[in-house]
Amino acid sequence: MEIEEEYPAKLLQGDNGYVLEDVPHLSDYIKDLPTYSNPLQNNPAYSVVKQYFVDYDDSVPQKIVVHKTSPRGTHFRRAGPRQKVYFDSDEVRACIVTCGGLCPGLNTVIREIVCGLSHMYGGGYRGFYARNTIPLTPKSVNDIHKRGGTILGTSRGGHDTKKIVDNIQDREINQVYIIGGDGTQMGASLIFEEVRRRGLKVAVVGIPKTIDNDIVVIDKSFGFDTAVEEAQRAIGAAHVEAESSENGIGVVKLMGRYSGFIAMYATLASRDVDCCLIPESPFYLEGAGGLFEFIEKRLKENGHMVLVVAEGAGQELIAESMRSTDLQDPSGNKLLLDVGLWLSQKIKEHFTKKPQMVINLKYIDPTYMIRAIPSNASDNVYCTLLAQSAVHGAMAGYTGFTSGLVNGRQTYIPFYRVTESRNKVVITDRMWARLLSSTNQPSFLSHEDIEEAAREEAPSTPQQDSAIGPDGNLVPSAHQSENGNI
Amino acid sequence: MEIEEEYPAKLLQGDNGYVLEDVPHLSDYIKDLPTYSNPLQNNPAYSVVKQYFVDYDDSVPQKIVVHKTSPRGTHFRRAGPRQKVYFDSDEVRACIVTCGGLCPGLNTVIREIVCGLSHMYGGGYRGFYARNTIPLTPKSVNDIHKRGGTILGTSRGGHDTKKIVDNIQDREINQVYIIGGDGTQMGASLIFEEVRRRGLKVAVVGIPKTIDNDIVVIDKSFGFDTAVEEAQRAIGAAHVEAESSENGIGVVKLMGRYSGFIAMYATLASRDVDCCLIPESPFYLEGAGGLFEFIEKRLKENGHMVLVVAEGAGQELIAESMRSTDLQDPSGNKLLLDVGLWLSQKIKEHFTKKPQMVINLKYIDPTYMIRAIPSNASDNVYCTLLAQSAVHGAMAGYTGFTSGLVNGRQTYIPFYRVTESRNKVVITDRMWARLLSSTNQPSFLSHEDIEEAAREEAPSTPQQDSAIGPDGNLVPSAHQSENGNI
Amino acid sequence: MEIEEEYPAKLLQGDNGYVLEDVPHLSDYIKDLPTYSNPLQNNPAYSVVKQYFVDYDDSVPQKIVVHKTSPRGTHFRRAGPRQKVYFDSDEVRACIVTCGGLCPGLNTVIREIVCGLSHMYGGGYRGFYARNTIPLTPKSVNDIHKRGGTILGTSRGGHDTKKIVDNIQDREINQVYIIGGDGTQMGASLIFEEVRRRGLKVAVVGIPKTIDNDIVVIDKSFGFDTAVEEAQRAIGAAHVEAESSENGIGVVKLMGRYSGFIAMYATLASRDVDCCLIPESPFYLEGAGGLFEFIEKRLKENGHMVLVVAEGAGQELIAESMRSTDLQDPSGNKLLLDVGLWLSQKIKEHFTKKPQMVINLKYIDPTYMIRAIPSNASDNVYCTLLAQSAVHGAMAGYTGFTSGLVNGRQTYIPFYRVTESRNKVVITDRMWARLLSSTNQPSFLSHEDIEEAAREEAPSTPQQDSAIGPDGNLVPSAHQSENGNI
Amino acid sequence: MEIEEEYPAKLLQGDNGYVLEDVPHLSDYIKDLPTYSNPLQNNPAYSVVKQYFVDYDDSVPQKIVVHKTSPRGTHFRRAGPRQKVYFDSDEVRACIVTCGGLCPGLNTVIREIVCGLSHMYGGGYRGFYARNTIPLTPKSVNDIHKRGGTILGTSRGGHDTKKIVDNIQDREINQVYIIGGDGTQMGASLIFEEVRRRGLKVAVVGIPKTIDNDIVVIDKSFGFDTAVEEAQRAIGAAHVEAESSENGIGVVKLMGRYSGFIAMYATLASRDVDCCLIPESPFYLEGAGGLFEFIEKRLKENGHMVLVVAEGAGQELIAESMRSTDLQDPSGNKLLLDVGLWLSQKIKEHFTKKPQMVINLKYIDPTYMIRAIPSNASDNVYCTLLAQSAVHGAMAGYTGFTSGLVNGRQTYIPFYRVTESRNKVVITDRMWARLLSSTNQPSFLSHEDIEEAAREEAPSTPQQDSAIGPDGNLVPSAHQSENGNI
Repeated sequence: MEIEEEYPAKLLQGDNGYVLEDVPHLSDYIKDLPTYSNPLQNNPAYSVVKQYFVDYDDSVPQKIVVHKTSPRGTHFRRAGPRQKVYFDSDEVRACIVTCGGLCPGLNTVIREIVCGLSHMYGGGYRGFYARNTIPLTPKSVNDIHKRGGTILGTSRGGHDTKKIVDNIQDREINQVYIIGGDGTQMGASLIFEEVRRRGLKVAVVGIPKTIDNDIVVIDKSFGFDTAVEEAQRAIGAAHVEAESSENGIGVVKLMGRYSGFIAMYATLASRDVDCCLIPESPFYLEGAGGLFEFIEKRLKENGHMVLVVAEGAGQELIAESMRSTDLQDPSGNKLLLDVGLWLSQKIKEHFTKKPQMVINLKYIDPTYMIRAIPSNASDNVYCTLLAQSAVHGAMAGYTGFTSGLVNGRQTYIPFYRVTESRNKVVITDRMWARLLSSTNQPSFLSHEDIEEAAREEAPSTPQQDSAIGPDGNLVPSAHQSENGNI
Repeated sequence: MEIEEEYPAKLLQGDNGYVLEDVPHLSDYIKDLPTYSNPLQNNPAYSVVKQYFVDYDDSVPQKIVVHKTSPRGTHFRRAGPRQKVYFDSDEVRACIVTCGGLCPGLNTVIREIVCGLSHMYGGGYRGFYARNTIPLTPKSVNDIHKRGGTILGTSRGGHDTKKIVDNIQDREINQVYIIGGDGTQMGASLIFEEVRRRGLKVAVVGIPKTIDNDIVVIDKSFGFDTAVEEAQRAIGAAHVEAESSENGIGVVKLMGRYSGFIAMYATLASRDVDCCLIPESPFYLEGAGGLFEFIEKRLKENGHMVLVVAEGAGQELIAESMRSTDLQDPSGNKLLLDVGLWLSQKIKEHFTKKPQMVINLKYIDPTYMIRAIPSNASDNVYCTLLAQSAVHGAMAGYTGFTSGLVNGRQTYIPFYRVTESRNKVVITDRMWARLLSSTNQPSFLSHEDIEEAAREEAPSTPQQDSAIGPDGNLVPSAHQSENGNI
Repeated sequence: MEIEEEYPAKLLQGDNGYVLEDVPHLSDYIKDLPTYSNPLQNNPAYSVVKQYFVDYDDSVPQKIVVHKTSPRGTHFRRAGPRQKVYFDSDEVRACIVTCGGLCPGLNTVIREIVCGLSHMYGGGYRGFYARNTIPLTPKSVNDIHKRGGTILGTSRGGHDTKKIVDNIQDREINQVYIIGGDGTQMGASLIFEEVRRRGLKVAVVGIPKTIDNDIVVIDKSFGFDTAVEEAQRAIGAAHVEAESSENGIGVVKLMGRYSGFIAMYATLASRDVDCCLIPESPFYLEGAGGLFEFIEKRLKENGHMVLVVAEGAGQELIAESMRSTDLQDPSGNKLLLDVGLWLSQKIKEHFTKKPQMVINLKYIDPTYMIRAIPSNASDNVYCTLLAQSAVHGAMAGYTGFTSGLVNGRQTYIPFYRVTESRNKVVITDRMWARLLSSTNQPSFLSHEDIEEAAREEAPSTPQQDSAIGPDGNLVPSAHQSENGNI
Repeated sequence: MEIEEEYPAKLLQGDNGYVLEDVPHLSDYIKDLPTYSNPLQNNPAYSVVKQYFVDYDDSVPQKIVVHKTSPRGTHFRRAGPRQKVYFDSDEVRACIVTCGGLCPGLNTVIREIVCGLSHMYGGGYRGFYARNTIPLTPKSVNDIHKRGGTILGTSRGGHDTKKIVDNIQDREINQVYIIGGDGTQMGASLIFEEVRRRGLKVAVVGIPKTIDNDIVVIDKSFGFDTAVEEAQRAIGAAHVEAESSENGIGVVKLMGRYSGFIAMYATLASRDVDCCLIPESPFYLEGAGGLFEFIEKRLKENGHMVLVVAEGAGQELIAESMRSTDLQDPSGNKLLLDVGLWLSQKIKEHFTKKPQMVINLKYIDPTYMIRAIPSNASDNVYCTLLAQSAVHGAMAGYTGFTSGLVNGRQTYIPFYRVTESRNKVVITDRMWARLLSSTNQPSFLSHEDIEEAAREEAPSTPQQDSAIGPDGNLVPSAHQSENGNI
């Protein structure tokens, strides 16, 4: 990966295989930076907190299911306030940017960065791009955590690193908080590289945002809990619709372009689902062991069924089916690429061939209703800690990092670790087995699929442990496997 | 209308233009029916109620906005228990049928018919058609009002009156409760006609069910309040999505095939809507005064907008647009007939021609999430009264009627009155004016439209009042107009 | 009543016993007031509404359960915009006051008065008392309907009519909107009298606010639906607690100082209640037919029970029980006057005497959680109509009136009619019988109680009738009876 | 602690200070137990899961904030299914017991134990005590996770270990699942001891239940998230009430007899709280730096305030205040021991002395409304994993353990570790500092308090450490500190 070449991973080794995968620091490329005593020491709220400041050496292991003789493995630097900070409070000029789709909790993260800098450090803030720039004060953000969406607005599209860093320089911004998905974190990484190249005293901090929970290394992305909660409501409605009519089928499409976490957790939480389809687990429609066969079977047994499908599931099937039909209307095409509509259509078509089994299919797409709700209490607290950790890290002079929860502890993670791969449901893992057991659905897997899946998630135990060395690529999949295997 | 010919309207006249539009009674066609003392008189709960029983002459006026010199006009028989009943408690064999789409409150109506007959009259019940027949007891229905949907299941399709009445005879059912929309009430009317023709002692009772509130004469259909409440949630989500992105447009499709009441009330209740489109109010997309122009204007002013569209709105536009494009995929076709998808597509297409105005459209269809929720407290109480009124009417020997709320009072209404036309939003009426004023949207009406609309809802005051005579067609639209004009 | 003497009721009579109980008008005491064409005629939203304006003669009957030969009885003037208004838009200086306890919908009423005057009439507004005065604009009230409480603040206590009218004069206010309960409406009536005495061109308009639904004449007070909905939640929790332990008793106190409507409707809506106690229905604890006996019986049958008690229930019992105990701590005293705590204590004491029956009582007081929630969709629309009716009335020059819903129609009601008595649950009426039948609780009534209750709701006081007309059927309390008897 | 003496801790040591604090196993005291192949291997849902079974050596560290040179410290055995089980499926006779107060999620735990044994192991179940015994089947528990409370009922009081174990023997029960708080876990520990003494093949498994989150070692107790979410609603209502009146004070009492976690998290999540009082942080009312002074200050600044108090806060103050007043009514007394009522009374009394500052206090106690709600999605999934882990452990022959989440991983923890102390908010820790910073309330601490608090949470008792290993860092209370310090 290019970025790693540009800015080599900082790997500090210790005894028994201990490795600290550290994050960049402003002092890595700027000499003789002045430091200041952390102003929190004067805050009455913190005066009672003896052990408030994080010990410089504190770190958190990535892998915590261990054996008696396990090597200690990769660690990340623990987040939190430091005794010394690299910004004078009056000097801070921060900006916050949100990118990509909505996610419950965005406003809480914004609120807490603003309040954190203000209450804790008393800095000022300024927007980022020319348009959309709005000044933020603790007062103006006071109630925003009770609202869904983002007060900053969000957009997709072009990203001109040079122009952005020019802008940062022009506006004399020295702390940049970038809230977004893995594409955005990749962009943040490029901004950091450019900032470093120009030798600017600008801390570049990422806060991972993905309602799909598809960012690696971290335990869980903010807003995920809230999304699963709301997704359950849609499943409940599908269940009522299905139960109320003969051969009723409720189809619910949930978010999850590459990863089926929302679908999986909502299915597990609700228990009303008969079949859950996710991008990670291929399936097929026709023939023995296929989806249609299963639907028929379940309808005969129960008289109704509920099907949850993650938006990224079955994309190859759709692509294939598109090629074979001769669709000439481009807009029609697009609509059909929606897996929920496509699957509903396919099921209906299948059953029109079976006149003795008249089905009644209802399709629900709650996506925008889920994204737009305010975060729940648990996500509110989580967003607060994420935001405060980010602020502490920037003040302490760290840069080029993502604020993230690892094994329940706030840590600082190098950009390249969260962007190098994507968190996915491991279908040979226990959590997915729990789901299969709860829905009693077939695995839709051929022998080849199973073997391939097993190879992919291969825990590569030997080289993993032995290879804990100078490279920056230590067992990304180990986390995923563990994550599921709680 | 055929039914009226078969069974002539029972119109009783009084002084000052008083007309009672009465409902059929078993004794109209069966002689010498025995009567029984109402068992409620022995119920301890009712022993304190001096004036519990409805006076035989009680009636409720349909039109209550009056002048000093107004004639008294049409009245309906007041619902409620009578001193004498025409069924012995042990003799009752009732069945309940639910038809058509889901609607909040269905289970409460079912529960209260069962409990009403059991607690109040102690009867027994049996299902209707061979399939789906389930026995109902107060215990089995005890908690169903807390669930959405219908425990009886619901289906559409064929209706063979003869076969149904055969079935009723075979099973010795003597009270039939039919919960459904205007099509279903029409079917109930045919069943009643056949029952009468055969001279059966079977009370046929309708309970109007329409989440769209499109049944005439009655104040409001059950479940409507709950539906509007839930519709607001979708509008709220659309608003958050729209606000959070530049030129964000939130489009929400709500129920309302022929009548825009849910869209209108949800818009009024939420206040976050910029434009509300309903079947009753034609609109056009292109050109001066068209929808696209309005969208552009609103986006320029506010940076975002929310558009609510009832499912039946703009159907002529869609039909027209379908003819002109050359769609070859029949399933694609169908999808596009969904006004929400179609309108979203049209808006997107329009703005692709305006590269300086990149929009961000989010489409929400909450239909099945709305239909499936349990009824709220207000609808729960309403459903209880509707169901109890129906039971009281059947026990009192009335038949061929619908249980309905008129001006806040429970009444019995002849079938033909609720099926002869459809309740619609009167767009030259004050309630729609309130909506227009709240959204500040254009009326999209040409001069001709306005005049036609005015003609259609013409209060026909002169002949209406003077014509209160022997016919059964007294001022159906008067109600609608008044209804809106609260 | 003093006010009636001061300002005689305006009674207009018509044929067949028609009586219009009219409201005062500025022109009653100020001569030669100029009128203006209603600016709504220029509002594009209203341009299509042919029959937008209310006919001068429109009225709404109070009693609508009638017979063939019934006299027509009392009517109220229909609310709505008039062709002519008595205020020039630029001239309006309005103020809004909220008094008493919180009630869902307060903010919606405020919002709609502000928007109504601004969008429809373009007036200005100013606060009332020196303190608490905040300027209101459509923009500042834009989102307040989504919040509970009142943005104006509310207070109890002193009411110095002279000082208030001085203040109105000083500030050149000419429209006063007063939102509050019957005490407040009485105060509004005094302000109107004083304004009239001074000959001021000031419209004084009341908007009845009472979460308890205890205001007479009107169908229902705003916020009531929302309150019942939320009250159900507390009952649901009490039910879960009771069911989960042996001999579990859940006690829920609901609002209702003088009237048990919230308790009654929440009980009917929830169906989980075993006993509902309200101020209108006396009860006793000990002995045969008493509450304790019933509780024991129900616990033996079901193993648990839920008891709902309105705050005003059993006050004589408490007073009596206070006299007999020798409480010396005055603050302790006060706590015990809370019927919920008192009753819970009494039940516990009773069962400590029955060691074989160990109960597990949980007491829930959801009062402030209910009062503080935002209004639901149905109340939002209702508040809108109430507020707009009030504004239309003031603009049309009416004064000394309350805006109220009568039989589903917006009307203007003279102050004295809403303050002369209190709306109560009529325990010899059918709605209460429904409740008794649903809970199967005893009536706790002796023969004397029943007879007294029957007398109390008996067709009303003679002078009331004679004051209105020669017939015997024009009874203000008849409404209460009818109200229940839907 | 007595239990430790009876059944010595199983401590297995490894390199670099690794200690495994293992749980008892049936084979510890019964020789030659047969083992069986885990039937999950034949379950199609699990056939794809290559690494489904937990490695025998898998363990999870308790302390994970480490340094380069840290010793490895205490570990717990990882939960999950084993290749070999010690019960034949047909042989299992399980019973489930729930004790103590309600907690969201109880029914989900019950459901998943039943389904786990049935779907996964196919066992049978029987109740425990003579009363309350109900048979449980996957069908009968199918929907219980959607309801609050516990279908098994719950009770407090006597615990006769001998009688219980007699009962277990009589009924031939061989798996006992005990869901309850630390008292209950202590009881479970005694049952385990007695079972072991009698040499019975009975697995005794605890599932920690405490809505207060006051159980040590584990990350979080089930139902806690749900409780915090619901607590926020009460705080929101108090905020609306307080804001809506002059000098409005909203007081909310939340659960937390010994630990203020719910109060702390709800305060952090809601941001509407001005002052949060918990058992761990002493406070005083009068004088400089006292609560009254702070309330006056906040009212002067903002005009209103919200105060959250955990039920166990200020108990010494109440006790003291009780001694000084001369209350003679014992029931009055009891009421006043409720800190919410007591504090509300004290605040009112204080301000009656300040006539220039008339306050308006509203007290909300949402306790039973919080306890009774169904668990949210996140708790539903958590409860599922807890229950499944418990079942896997019992089947694998482990006994005398609690199923618990440690650093995000399911583990088995010896009983004595979860009962030896109580999880508390560490007021010299960063989480509490966050709260103080968010509310800006004073710490109410004298210098002595701070020092004492620091001593209390100081790195723990020597014998604990020596019992485990030679180093000084293996501290059970370290978890608490760490727990807060995320």
